[in-house]
Amino acid sequence: MPSIELSSKQTADFELLANDGFAPLTGFQGKADYDAVVETMRLADGAPWSIPVVLGAETGEVGETVDLIGSQGEALGTITIEEVYERDLKNEAEKVYRTTDDAHPGVAALYSENSRVIAGPIEANTLPDHIDIVKPYLLTPAETKAEFAKRGWKTVVGFQTRNPIHRAHEYITKVALEGVDGLFLHPLVGETKSDDIDAETRMRCYEVLIDGYYVKERVLLGVNPAAMRYAGPREAIFHALVRRNYGCTHFIVGRDHAGVGDYYGTFDAQHIFDEFEPGELGIEPLKFEHSFWCNLTGSMATSKTSPAGPEDKVFLSGTAVREMLTRGERPPVEFTRPEVADVLIEAMAGAEVPA
Amino acid sequence: MPSIELSSKQTADFELLANDGFAPLTGFQGKADYDAVVETMRLADGAPWSIPVVLGAETGEVGETVDLIGSQGEALGTITIEEVYERDLKNEAEKVYRTTDDAHPGVAALYSENSRVIAGPIEANTLPDHIDIVKPYLLTPAETKAEFAKRGWKTVVGFQTRNPIHRAHEYITKVALEGVDGLFLHPLVGETKSDDIDAETRMRCYEVLIDGYYVKERVLLGVNPAAMRYAGPREAIFHALVRRNYGCTHFIVGRDHAGVGDYYGTFDAQHIFDEFEPGELGIEPLKFEHSFWCNLTGSMATSKTSPAGPEDKVFLSGTAVREMLTRGERPPVEFTRPEVADVLIEAMAGAEVPA
Repeated sequence: MPSIELSSKQTADFELLANDGFAPLTGFQGKADYDAVVETMRLADGAPWSIPVVLGAETGEVGETVDLIGSQGEALGTITIEEVYERDLKNEAEKVYRTTDDAHPGVAALYSENSRVIAGPIEANTLPDHIDIVKPYLLTPAETKAEFAKRGWKTVVGFQTRNPIHRAHEYITKVALEGVDGLFLHPLVGETKSDDIDAETRMRCYEVLIDGYYVKERVLLGVNPAAMRYAGPREAIFHALVRRNYGCTHFIVGRDHAGVGDYYGTFDAQHIFDEFEPGELGIEPLKFEHSFWCNLTGSMATSKTSPAGPEDKVFLSGTAVREMLTRGERPPVEFTRPEVADVLIEAMAGAEVPA
Repeated sequence: MPSIELSSKQTADFELLANDGFAPLTGFQGKADYDAVVETMRLADGAPWSIPVVLGAETGEVGETVDLIGSQGEALGTITIEEVYERDLKNEAEKVYRTTDDAHPGVAALYSENSRVIAGPIEANTLPDHIDIVKPYLLTPAETKAEFAKRGWKTVVGFQTRNPIHRAHEYITKVALEGVDGLFLHPLVGETKSDDIDAETRMRCYEVLIDGYYVKERVLLGVNPAAMRYAGPREAIFHALVRRNYGCTHFIVGRDHAGVGDYYGTFDAQHIFDEFEPGELGIEPLKFEHSFWCNLTGSMATSKTSPAGPEDKVFLSGTAVREMLTRGERPPVEFTRPEVADVLIEAMAGAEVPA
């Protein structure tokens, strides 16, 4: 039987197709769905879907069943090819990423893929391998839904980041949790750009933070195997749909969700939810502004809840934080919990300080 | 023309009938509505309504139009009597207040009313008088809805208390505000039991708190002229319906909302919302647990968001706080903002320390 070796992004897509994280998809998308997704943010049948899930490949013909090999060499399963077609990568970039600039990491990744794609249902023999620290948290949608039910959670808010978790993230997750039964922390552990903090370090941050500062009965930590697209607004919808599939009723959308550089407006990823009818996505976005420690009110806050001027807001740029950590210094406790800072300091020991 | 002098509770009911705060009611309830409200928490036509709005009176006959005189002597307007009937006060207490104990202040007030009631539409010539500090905040439902629209608020959360506002209240109002466009602080300024803090003092507390700690563009202060019933769960629904009429989309329901003594379970006033279909009330409850300052997390929190043990939670009983204030001492800043404490200290100077 012929076989195709998948990239790490394709391997992650396979995992989410196999575990129902990408429901209602059951395979790599054919042309009707692909075109509808790119042009209308919907599948051909009208259901919301914002990012193409396609398999670019040089080989494979209609009617063949082809072995799919994961990026770690796993014999994942097969695809039964029903369609082979060409896609317009530049049009996909323009519509999905809102830019054709190959300095955008998601666009660059897209341009590196084959424009020839093969489409059809998959069969999974096994799920992809992961690093050890991720393994205990590799819950499938069926498993998370069972756990939510066991805990009696009727309303669950999902939280996505690709970044280490600072006080700002802790604040919005807790504000969201006050209004629902449970919190599903669901960091993305698939491929990210090379200057993002690695998944292992981020998982350690979550572990120490939950251990010290969260109520264990009210929080569940899982991982989203997906690769980052950095597609901003379109990816916010994509992230929400995936969390719906994992059983969440609500999803946190912060400032510049899934964004990179200056490609998207700060709140574009919140506004895009208004393009869907209420209830249509099957999950409700909870939209948050930029949060910070406020010395005036003695609390975390946003510009909605603190009247403080800039002098009373604890603000540090990402670069400043990275420099402090690389030098072995903890950021202020108002910015990062000390236990999280120590994980980051250990991980960054010896790293080059950015210019 | 015959006339009837209204009690302060009846005067408040007149105001809310006249200003549409009690919509869809347009007058004091007839027997069909009264019976349906008491027995089923609905009007005769099925619309949700949880507390009777009736006019107990010794005089007045069917067909008469009677002048209504407010508790300050105001010539408020008229009632055109369409029905005269007897109600069973004990049954009303049992169903609405869940107790027939006349030690309950709402039940005691009910028992002091006439069981003979007159019913029919009202006509308002003027609205009741109020103390000076309340006057700038006497916004009608039409006025608050216009103000919300002017500010571009599509979602507005309403907050009710009959108590001074401490950090715990500030926390839940701000958590709620993070999820919506605006906050409508709507303290009740009608009749309360004699050992509650007076409305004038409470209004001063709101003024200094908003001035120092809230974002003026995100908060509106109004007053609810209603009298307290202390009916717990039934009154929580009533409070929510009134705030719906003022234009709120969400309503904060804390622990023991509108409760008194030990008559209601801590979360009964939250559970009762589940007895209505989603959307039926026209306003969404936001349910909060008891909140406190937590030394472990360095923030306000609830038992959902802080894993701290009792030793790390700043807790003061109402009695302890009252004793401190009466002695001229500010409670800890983690419990009460200093500016609010000073208002309360001034108001309580010379008051008797409770035994």
